[in-house]
Amino acid sequence: DDVWAVVDDHHLEGAYEFPDFRNALEFTYEVGELAEEEWHHPDIHLQWGEVRIEVWTHKIDGLHESDFVMAAKMDRCYEEYPEE
Amino acid sequence: DDVWAVVDDHHLEGAYEFPDFRNALEFTYEVGELAEEEWHHPDIHLQWGEVRIEVWTHKIDGLHESDFVMAAKMDRCYEEYPEE
Repeated sequence: DDVWAVVDDHHLEGAYEFPDFRNALEFTYEVGELAEEEWHHPDIHLQWGEVRIEVWTHKIDGLHESDFVMAAKMDRCYEEYPEE
Repeated sequence: DDVWAVVDDHHLEGAYEFPDFRNALEFTYEVGELAEEEWHHPDIHLQWGEVRIEVWTHKIDGLHESDFVMAAKMDRCYEEYPEE
């Protein structure tokens, strides 16, 4: 999995690539729905062809198992999207 | 309009506040739909309770009338959302 990096021992940061804006937008919305289901809300930066994510656990201001679970769920969601 | 600032004579930057994640997510999606309709795609940063936007015209790497039109349309869209 090349998407994710642990940054400053504090959060996970990942970037997903898309062939256009539309796919990036739909992915953003799906991640948002997932965030509501899991009640775990990442920061999501949407731009043409890319969605960047930062996720951490606000309550402990750091990383928890649930962050890695969210990351894995986003990865699974991304598999449904076209590559370029 | 307190939302928008011109930054570095290069782009518009604005932040919209929301009472929760759900409203911020729905607004993000609406702005994305608008971006596709106008074929003018801002950067959109979604987090709990806030959506930050940067918009400029890539072709001229700066500001054009269409950026201000996009900003006004986003403002109009925001009026439909609850304040807190």
